[in-house]
Amino acid sequence: MAEFTKKRSRKAGVPPGTLVPISEKRGEKVKVTIIDYDESQFVEKQVDSVNECIPYRDKTSMTWINVDGIHQVEIVEKLGECFGVHRLLMEDIVTTDQRPKMEDLGEYIYVVLRMLYLDGDDIVSEQVSLILGANYVISFQEMGRDVFDSIRDRIRNNKGRVRKMGADYLAYALIDAIVDNYFLIMERLGEKVEAIEMKLISSPMPQTLRTLQSLKRTMVGLRRAVWPLRDVISGLERSESPLIREGMGMYLKDVYDHTVQIMDSIEAQRDILSGMLDIYLSSVSNRLNEVMKVLTIIATIFIPLTFLVGVYGMNFKHMPELESPYGYWAVWGVIIVVAVTMLVFFRKKKWL
Amino acid sequence: MAEFTKKRSRKAGVPPGTLVPISEKRGEKVKVTIIDYDESQFVEKQVDSVNECIPYRDKTSMTWINVDGIHQVEIVEKLGECFGVHRLLMEDIVTTDQRPKMEDLGEYIYVVLRMLYLDGDDIVSEQVSLILGANYVISFQEMGRDVFDSIRDRIRNNKGRVRKMGADYLAYALIDAIVDNYFLIMERLGEKVEAIEMKLISSPMPQTLRTLQSLKRTMVGLRRAVWPLRDVISGLERSESPLIREGMGMYLKDVYDHTVQIMDSIEAQRDILSGMLDIYLSSVSNRLNEVMKVLTIIATIFIPLTFLVGVYGMNFKHMPELESPYGYWAVWGVIIVVAVTMLVFFRKKKWL
Amino acid sequence: MAEFTKKRSRKAGVPPGTLVPISEKRGEKVKVTIIDYDESQFVEKQVDSVNECIPYRDKTSMTWINVDGIHQVEIVEKLGECFGVHRLLMEDIVTTDQRPKMEDLGEYIYVVLRMLYLDGDDIVSEQVSLILGANYVISFQEMGRDVFDSIRDRIRNNKGRVRKMGADYLAYALIDAIVDNYFLIMERLGEKVEAIEMKLISSPMPQTLRTLQSLKRTMVGLRRAVWPLRDVISGLERSESPLIREGMGMYLKDVYDHTVQIMDSIEAQRDILSGMLDIYLSSVSNRLNEVMKVLTIIATIFIPLTFLVGVYGMNFKHMPELESPYGYWAVWGVIIVVAVTMLVFFRKKKWL
Amino acid sequence: MAEFTKKRSRKAGVPPGTLVPISEKRGEKVKVTIIDYDESQFVEKQVDSVNECIPYRDKTSMTWINVDGIHQVEIVEKLGECFGVHRLLMEDIVTTDQRPKMEDLGEYIYVVLRMLYLDGDDIVSEQVSLILGANYVISFQEMGRDVFDSIRDRIRNNKGRVRKMGADYLAYALIDAIVDNYFLIMERLGEKVEAIEMKLISSPMPQTLRTLQSLKRTMVGLRRAVWPLRDVISGLERSESPLIREGMGMYLKDVYDHTVQIMDSIEAQRDILSGMLDIYLSSVSNRLNEVMKVLTIIATIFIPLTFLVGVYGMNFKHMPELESPYGYWAVWGVIIVVAVTMLVFFRKKKWL
Amino acid sequence: MAEFTKKRSRKAGVPPGTLVPISEKRGEKVKVTIIDYDESQFVEKQVDSVNECIPYRDKTSMTWINVDGIHQVEIVEKLGECFGVHRLLMEDIVTTDQRPKMEDLGEYIYVVLRMLYLDGDDIVSEQVSLILGANYVISFQEMGRDVFDSIRDRIRNNKGRVRKMGADYLAYALIDAIVDNYFLIMERLGEKVEAIEMKLISSPMPQTLRTLQSLKRTMVGLRRAVWPLRDVISGLERSESPLIREGMGMYLKDVYDHTVQIMDSIEAQRDILSGMLDIYLSSVSNRLNEVMKVLTIIATIFIPLTFLVGVYGMNFKHMPELESPYGYWAVWGVIIVVAVTMLVFFRKKKWL
Repeated sequence: MAEFTKKRSRKAGVPPGTLVPISEKRGEKVKVTIIDYDESQFVEKQVDSVNECIPYRDKTSMTWINVDGIHQVEIVEKLGECFGVHRLLMEDIVTTDQRPKMEDLGEYIYVVLRMLYLDGDDIVSEQVSLILGANYVISFQEMGRDVFDSIRDRIRNNKGRVRKMGADYLAYALIDAIVDNYFLIMERLGEKVEAIEMKLISSPMPQTLRTLQSLKRTMVGLRRAVWPLRDVISGLERSESPLIREGMGMYLKDVYDHTVQIMDSIEAQRDILSGMLDIYLSSVSNRLNEVMKVLTIIATIFIPLTFLVGVYGMNFKHMPELESPYGYWAVWGVIIVVAVTMLVFFRKKKWL
Repeated sequence: MAEFTKKRSRKAGVPPGTLVPISEKRGEKVKVTIIDYDESQFVEKQVDSVNECIPYRDKTSMTWINVDGIHQVEIVEKLGECFGVHRLLMEDIVTTDQRPKMEDLGEYIYVVLRMLYLDGDDIVSEQVSLILGANYVISFQEMGRDVFDSIRDRIRNNKGRVRKMGADYLAYALIDAIVDNYFLIMERLGEKVEAIEMKLISSPMPQTLRTLQSLKRTMVGLRRAVWPLRDVISGLERSESPLIREGMGMYLKDVYDHTVQIMDSIEAQRDILSGMLDIYLSSVSNRLNEVMKVLTIIATIFIPLTFLVGVYGMNFKHMPELESPYGYWAVWGVIIVVAVTMLVFFRKKKWL
Repeated sequence: MAEFTKKRSRKAGVPPGTLVPISEKRGEKVKVTIIDYDESQFVEKQVDSVNECIPYRDKTSMTWINVDGIHQVEIVEKLGECFGVHRLLMEDIVTTDQRPKMEDLGEYIYVVLRMLYLDGDDIVSEQVSLILGANYVISFQEMGRDVFDSIRDRIRNNKGRVRKMGADYLAYALIDAIVDNYFLIMERLGEKVEAIEMKLISSPMPQTLRTLQSLKRTMVGLRRAVWPLRDVISGLERSESPLIREGMGMYLKDVYDHTVQIMDSIEAQRDILSGMLDIYLSSVSNRLNEVMKVLTIIATIFIPLTFLVGVYGMNFKHMPELESPYGYWAVWGVIIVVAVTMLVFFRKKKWL
Repeated sequence: MAEFTKKRSRKAGVPPGTLVPISEKRGEKVKVTIIDYDESQFVEKQVDSVNECIPYRDKTSMTWINVDGIHQVEIVEKLGECFGVHRLLMEDIVTTDQRPKMEDLGEYIYVVLRMLYLDGDDIVSEQVSLILGANYVISFQEMGRDVFDSIRDRIRNNKGRVRKMGADYLAYALIDAIVDNYFLIMERLGEKVEAIEMKLISSPMPQTLRTLQSLKRTMVGLRRAVWPLRDVISGLERSESPLIREGMGMYLKDVYDHTVQIMDSIEAQRDILSGMLDIYLSSVSNRLNEVMKVLTIIATIFIPLTFLVGVYGMNFKHMPELESPYGYWAVWGVIIVVAVTMLVFFRKKKWL
Repeated sequence: MAEFTKKRSRKAGVPPGTLVPISEKRGEKVKVTIIDYDESQFVEKQVDSVNECIPYRDKTSMTWINVDGIHQVEIVEKLGECFGVHRLLMEDIVTTDQRPKMEDLGEYIYVVLRMLYLDGDDIVSEQVSLILGANYVISFQEMGRDVFDSIRDRIRNNKGRVRKMGADYLAYALIDAIVDNYFLIMERLGEKVEAIEMKLISSPMPQTLRTLQSLKRTMVGLRRAVWPLRDVISGLERSESPLIREGMGMYLKDVYDHTVQIMDSIEAQRDILSGMLDIYLSSVSNRLNEVMKVLTIIATIFIPLTFLVGVYGMNFKHMPELESPYGYWAVWGVIIVVAVTMLVFFRKKKWL
């Protein structure tokens, strides 16, 4: 998730407003889809040339132009020019390491945010840009994921209120779909955290710690995606642009609440992960203690005894004990007394 | 307490405003109770059909409609429609992982907060939603706990001033009852913290550490319930809605002070818990030190002595000491001198 | 100092405004003292019945009514009713776990703060409530400590300007006396911190750590008493109430500066205490190092030598060295060479 | 990077407004270059005397005066006097440990910021001062690096919009070039962090830790350069000076976003570095555990056995086992049983 | 540097406005010096009686009255009364544990700040109070240090602009001189930090750690002196008092920038010191590892060998190996094989 500033160097020394794609995610061909609808009718088509989009600019029906793939900067450039998008924003659209932000340019509102989805076991972060005009929404994705499919369905089947509302509602619905996906990510991460906790308790290994650290980083990455998103949404909510109609406040507040909830959840998981480090470290030092106890018990019992039998292994001519018929048994007696005393001592110390 | 975002995934892809229950706490049947009162009279009844609630909407007496259980979304939906509740709020009522918040919609104020109670030894967190209208309060609970019983009693027996005041006072009384319960939770947690501290000192085990971590998480969970509640209450206090009458400020300030006090108390407990980790870690390393000292004392005394007796265990033909009649006793003398010297050394080092 | 939320549970389920004493500090009898003064005259008496206070309400001379002990809630209640105090404030007066706060109710200002004093070696925290009216101040204490004696003296002997000023100055003087006492507490704590530091360096024991933790908690408790007090005093300073006359600003700013100074001092002590934990932990691990070095030196010297003499303790028939007349001395030579080599090695490693 | 306050002492006791150079970076000679341009023409020349700059002050074409090297304070002084720069700002220009800041003096805006570039493997920090007037920009560098070359190129070849815009755009372009360079630094640092992580895992040495700490400090240094820069740029953006023309807002917002992105990136790297310390410490204690296990296994197996064979090395006259023809083999049997038992025990403990 | 709240207890119970000196720094006699100047003339004299100061109050020339030593409270009191200083401020002047602050009383501005200087190797903190009137500045120092000498020189020799400006510039110059001195302190501290770092790496001893902690505290003390100073200076800058003339803003902003720079520098040093603790702890545990490795290598090689030779030291009648003429050499062979195998094993583990 840490693709930030990765290929930014390609852009050094280029005049501002130059479109240099830095994304490395690229399908074969950029796909441009138009969905045009109002309460009574609905048209969906895939276009080959950007020129086909131009007539939709001033139609009274709502139009959603979705662009999957942005590595062909000419398409973004052309489309941007048709709809009067500022060059610096076009640059932002193709520079896919943007922080979520929202800019109100009067005629249209530009929103950029990060879409997260699961690709197998990995969390992939993709940049989504939205241009919200009076009666159109243009969305730019890097790969074209199925997150927006449910909205397409709702438009196709006139489910919910999307066909009855304006472009602002469509933009809201797209953002809502992206934010709803964060909950899935959080659930998956929650499961991973629980799994790692189990592992930590049963066998604390440096590898587990490494996984823990990478989970922490994922949380940091998530935080970086969600935190500025809050400001974006509250910016839309408080915006006085005529593009955001009056009834939208309630809906935007709802998405806002969701982002706050996700932030809460991220912070909670981070707390848990921090606590797990403490458990790990204490587990490790506890094991050391255990190892040392075994060593100490064995050594403390047998080293004195070895000395003892060493004494009677000496070859002095005059050692009265050696002559005694009971000497050997007496030594065994001493050995047993010493060993038992030591064991009692360790039991009292709670080492056994 | 970490039920946040658990079953949120059920909701992915559903249009906003759809009621999908995510709570897993469900009694058999949803119970709807109506208490209608003014200063002079009082009626309490349990209704089977939501339709029975409709007449109470415009009565001049105060009405408290309490809904225990929200898994039957039809009941919430119907009641909501009767009283003109926004669909997104109905969705919030049944989505039981809400953060405490308050929304003023003009005709009514929506408040959602978390009720905590002890179920045996566990702390259970339940969502409570309140709809405060001009002369009615509707409350939605997940399970229907006895926290509100004292208020029912006060209404039944005309104790305190609840019968003399309006719907705003009733809403306040409900919130106050929930907040008062937090004090009980804090007391119980305080006892647990003390108990664990005792344990830590007498026997520092990784299990104790685990309990400590889970207490920490509980504190974090509590914090998450109480922190936004402060904003909710101060929001009500500063609200200019005509639904909150003038004399209420003093009462709301009082609950506000209580939440601040609970926050203080939570922070204090968290500080104590953090300090306990340090004590734990130092206890563990202290024990290691002690183990090592025992080992070192034993080894340092007996290893040299074993060497000594080993010398006179050698089988050289020419070893003058072996012939001497006092050799054996001389060795014993040396042994005693070495041992005593070592013991004195350890005493001086304060290891004994 | 952690008496917060201790007996709060007694209050659960009681209607707001009910007076339930939670303090456990109680002398035998509540003592009510009246000091009435203006620039020219001075009267001091102890009253048996609260009714005696009523005439002082509307006198033009200044009146200070001091109540020592609040466990007899009837007295607080009666006095409160006489002077028109809000029921919720009366509840605050007897609920002795309040956070310092200040409330302006127009006719009077209510201030609650925490008085700290040393009882032998312990720091005791007591709640003091002040009601500041146009020409009277009522103060409520839990036990009745001698902190206010110096003010009584000043009034009796017309020292300083207290007799020339109004009720606001008296209230200020009471607060100032309480804050001045904090400096004494800080000095005593500073001495304790220094004493513990000495101990830490000479003998790092888990007990010392425990004392250190309890000092930390005391600091946290102090912080909790002083931090909100700052807001209380700056609230009084910025208040536009006619009860606070114009010239008071300078005096209140002075107390304010004192609280800031105490906060600074608390933070500094906390920093020092945190640093001491690091010193403690490093002392402990240093001792472990030392123990291990002793063990290693002894073991590394004598274990190889024991092996050596073990070799010549073997009973093989054919061991040419055993026959040699110089064998024994040669072994001693080897022993000395090995031992010296080892000692040189350890000296080079700086273990000796 | 920590050159802050290094040679500041030279300045103690000197009246404010005295120009004392504290930089130790100095080429042989200060180089002053003038680039004068408008949309239709372009002149570039290097001047020997500052006096040649004076005519450019009031020309209608845009003029960029670049000064490489500031150790000859006379040049800065003269140039400053020509263009009416405040003495305290001249002092700031030659005192090269300034924090990034921006000051609007009406006739001109003064901006100081830090340019970072890579010199081999090191990150060098240099102070750049900009004076933005109505139709001129004066830039002061310590050494004269190639960071501005791309802008010179754009002016020479009329690339981008720089020739069409005013002095404010030029100043923006210079700042943008400096900020773009930060991305390169961040990439290089990111690579270093990754490299060190690899090393940490394979061989945790104190040296690695030292490198890690120095990386951390570099991050802190970077942060100190970028953090106040944010305020500088947002200050320019929100400035109401007529020197900043209207269309510039969008461009300044773009640089602003870049600095925010860099801050994000710095914070992320710092988080990663912090996590690496934990990994390092746990690696070290893990190694200790491993060492101790080896010692314990060996000692625990052989110390009891050495005792055993010591027993039969005793020289008692009456030891029945010694006479038995199977005694020796029996002892071997016991030895093998003990050894195997121990190995099984260690396997069960997962030490093997 | 931690003299805060030290002797504050002397003041408990005294009415506010009483002058009790708490400083323990006291020269023999308080020295009062008057410097009277305007652009054309200059007089400097030392006075014996405070009364000599009175005429300077209303002269049109600028007057700087410097008081070295404040333990004779009568002098402060008299001077204060002459110039109409509020009693509470007089109390602040002699109570030398003030936090830097600034108070605008209309006729004069009171500023208190902390002067730091090096006394040999120690950093000494002294309180300086300034009274800035329309045409006079009174400065109070505890000891009278040479920090202000350079300003005296500038006045005497009419260097810089001090003689041309008003009392506000003089006050600024005094503050500037104090702040400039902080840079010297920071340089010295920086050198100490570097020196300690060297020591930490070469020989990590608990004493080094103690020095490190004391450096940390010095930083905290410095921070406490500088942090509120920022507010003081920005307070002067934003002040609307006629005592601060218009052109002063630029100068005050300059000192303000210096304090910010010092804060930055302090924070950077604190970061470095924190990092050094980590290095220290890891150095210590690394040494432990090394010690353990030596022990383990020796023990692991010789303990099994000692067992081996112990076997052939047994006195069994029937031990076939003992009879063999090659037995002894065979044992030596085994010994060498075991030792070499072990050494190879340790080499593979990278312990050698």
